[in-house]
Amino acid sequence: MKHTTMRTKIKEILNRQDTDYKVNVKGWVRSFRNNQFIALNDGSCMANIQVVIELGTDENIVKKITNGASVSVDGTVIASQGKGQRVEIKADTLTILGECDPEKFPLQLKNRPSLEYLREIAHLRFRTNTFGAVFRVRHTLAYAIHKFYNDRGFVYMHTPIVTASDAEGAGEMFRVTTLPFDNPPRNEDGGIDFKEDFFGRSTNLTVSGQLEAELGATAFGEVYTFGPTFRAENSNTARHLAEFWMIEPEVAFNDINDNMDLAEDFIRYIIGYAMEHNREDLEFLAQRLADEEKQKPQNERSEMGLIEKLEFVMNNRFERITYTDAINILLDSPAYKKKKFQYDVKWGIDLQSEHERYLVEKHFKKPVIVTGYPKDIKAFYMRMNDDGKTVAAMDILAPGIGEIVGGSQREERLDMLEKRMAEMHIPTEELYWYLDTRRFGTVPHAGFGLGFERMVLFVTGMTNIRDVIPFPRTPKNAEF
Amino acid sequence: MKHTTMRTKIKEILNRQDTDYKVNVKGWVRSFRNNQFIALNDGSCMANIQVVIELGTDENIVKKITNGASVSVDGTVIASQGKGQRVEIKADTLTILGECDPEKFPLQLKNRPSLEYLREIAHLRFRTNTFGAVFRVRHTLAYAIHKFYNDRGFVYMHTPIVTASDAEGAGEMFRVTTLPFDNPPRNEDGGIDFKEDFFGRSTNLTVSGQLEAELGATAFGEVYTFGPTFRAENSNTARHLAEFWMIEPEVAFNDINDNMDLAEDFIRYIIGYAMEHNREDLEFLAQRLADEEKQKPQNERSEMGLIEKLEFVMNNRFERITYTDAINILLDSPAYKKKKFQYDVKWGIDLQSEHERYLVEKHFKKPVIVTGYPKDIKAFYMRMNDDGKTVAAMDILAPGIGEIVGGSQREERLDMLEKRMAEMHIPTEELYWYLDTRRFGTVPHAGFGLGFERMVLFVTGMTNIRDVIPFPRTPKNAEF
Repeated sequence: MKHTTMRTKIKEILNRQDTDYKVNVKGWVRSFRNNQFIALNDGSCMANIQVVIELGTDENIVKKITNGASVSVDGTVIASQGKGQRVEIKADTLTILGECDPEKFPLQLKNRPSLEYLREIAHLRFRTNTFGAVFRVRHTLAYAIHKFYNDRGFVYMHTPIVTASDAEGAGEMFRVTTLPFDNPPRNEDGGIDFKEDFFGRSTNLTVSGQLEAELGATAFGEVYTFGPTFRAENSNTARHLAEFWMIEPEVAFNDINDNMDLAEDFIRYIIGYAMEHNREDLEFLAQRLADEEKQKPQNERSEMGLIEKLEFVMNNRFERITYTDAINILLDSPAYKKKKFQYDVKWGIDLQSEHERYLVEKHFKKPVIVTGYPKDIKAFYMRMNDDGKTVAAMDILAPGIGEIVGGSQREERLDMLEKRMAEMHIPTEELYWYLDTRRFGTVPHAGFGLGFERMVLFVTGMTNIRDVIPFPRTPKNAEF
Repeated sequence: MKHTTMRTKIKEILNRQDTDYKVNVKGWVRSFRNNQFIALNDGSCMANIQVVIELGTDENIVKKITNGASVSVDGTVIASQGKGQRVEIKADTLTILGECDPEKFPLQLKNRPSLEYLREIAHLRFRTNTFGAVFRVRHTLAYAIHKFYNDRGFVYMHTPIVTASDAEGAGEMFRVTTLPFDNPPRNEDGGIDFKEDFFGRSTNLTVSGQLEAELGATAFGEVYTFGPTFRAENSNTARHLAEFWMIEPEVAFNDINDNMDLAEDFIRYIIGYAMEHNREDLEFLAQRLADEEKQKPQNERSEMGLIEKLEFVMNNRFERITYTDAINILLDSPAYKKKKFQYDVKWGIDLQSEHERYLVEKHFKKPVIVTGYPKDIKAFYMRMNDDGKTVAAMDILAPGIGEIVGGSQREERLDMLEKRMAEMHIPTEELYWYLDTRRFGTVPHAGFGLGFERMVLFVTGMTNIRDVIPFPRTPKNAEF
């Protein structure tokens, strides 16, 4: 049957103030009651629209109106006679587009399915309220990121995914290859001959686009990346993915303070953008989180609701402390004195999750930027401070998430950089192109990386990172 | 030396109408003449600003003002006394931030370096006018893509990069692995035991996000992807990359005609957006192309200049023809009759580059959308037409580029899809999640893929795809 009416999105109908006009809507049935009232969702927004069909409609059609079935409805938008909605659609004709056998459909919404179960049917979970909201918010955050940088004149750089370099100087990586496992080509000394591999050398998946972004920043002034990055770490936690998206701005002429300002402005902007454009989704997620927290003992519940927390971050400057301050706060803490920390605290340690949580959640009760880390626990490219012991690094720690941003002012002095690379056994020949930025018109510059999924976790109030990326990649899992 | 003035971008100075105000600018020297006039560029725009230093400035500073050096200038913006610019900066103080040894700097702009040479120093080529323009346009196109879909309510989906599935049902792929080449784990029958690999199965880099995008479209209605895709094909041409970015919108309830409308609107929108926001860059690139074409014999030159071509595409509907029409046009062509085609023409062939170019560049002289391809040369998921011989596929062919978009209405009928998969020996069990969209509330839907780099080629008038992505990945090349 050919429909002459153009499809109207449910979001548009719900946003209009008028009534008594003809529409065609298409979507999926979320519920059907009394053989008369369909809650229809088309994914354009959280809300369903109520479609009312005539009592006495053809029984062959009525029995196919099941949860998950897709339908096309021609009808009239009228003021609703029932409670719970302002408008509804009085159906003139209803066509079943696709049936959905209730016996076989894995997504039964009646008994609220667990997040764990929905992870197993990730191909269908977008059709739930929770994941609809999460992925609409994820979209909005991604868009806000591009808008923030575009409006400020940054150039978006697609840095390479397959690379022969390793930005961190270490880190577990995935090999990318077209060589066969059976009888791979070998060179004279018996090693694998990667000259025969597709790219003529050993290659892997990128862990960061930063080094290449620096090449862009030293020409365009301000650049950012937004692309996938990879870690072949066997971490089965609620905060780690093997494949995740990262945003890495890099700015010529910025120092560590400018870098902190940029990171704060950026985070506040994208949260504000989501609050403005996805209020309905965020309110639903706030309620979901509140319901979830009711299951927890009182002392494990968050002090703030989701909306409250986001407003707090938007309206308060982040705390800025040095690593040395952080160590002193931890040493002075009741937790340390009562030996509640599992890991020891002393100057020089890498802060553990328990330490970060103490600082952020107990001590300051807000996001904290820690600067001036010991050089020995940070990467080779970070700028040496005058004390010769610490580097101009910065980590932003967020309540409930931990490290959400890692960045630094970069070492722009060729001699200092080469010295540091030698100390850390990083070969300079391979990175000649990186050192060239210091050889030819070097400039002070700084940048950072924001883990996108951790940001989505923070904004949506979800607690497992597998629930904020469409199809998570984790050890032993590359489903869909 | 600490500067108290905030840095001002050159773009901002050139856009302001007033003069006689103090600024600090920072950037890279593009040229220095008469020991007095510096052309300074900070990457914010194509144009340089002229900085005038006092005659008699400290010789130790003057000798360091070389092409490529970075400087910080405090001074006053004044009306220019010379020709060629409206304003210039009279320097009060000039600080060398980073020297640049003219003997060693690989980027000597005096003798216009070739694109081939610049490809070898891709880490520095952003600092040239040509690549500055190309990558600013690339940025704008990327932003316009997000804006186009966001404004229309599409949800941006990050589909997986590492995947166990192969969207095309074929295609050469890169393996992603953490298994060692030396003594890899083997199963009982001697094959490689991929259960021991990181993801517990054999995985590769994605060739398309389409199948996963369809999962999103059947929940959100309208989604798009914008991410990297990979082909391990040994193609050393000016149009192929092993790693490239693709945009793949997917829309529930759209048929093949809606799909064509969307693709046309989309292409026109992003070109228009670049024309509006990067006019200066595009005019430079148009001139570059015109200069390049002067080297060619008359009959090989383009009939239109770059700007003219882009305006033409914005203002004219694309030609829409069926594959059968296309074959008939080719069979009727003087080129065919004079046996000028290298490849034979008959119904059923895959159109070759020479055929596409004839249709687009000689016959219609504009972009052409070809629909209704023979089922045997297209993918399993394309919707079968009623003739049982052709599928609802569409390719958009662009002058000078060839195929820029490939798409189709998808086969939403479970029985037809399963039949086609069986015929093409595509295992249905592995793709159970894909088939579930047809099992549970299936809907008509359609989508397409746009090769981003091909689009950037088209808009910038560049001729080699290696020149429109920051660091190209091609056979035997993964430099930087």
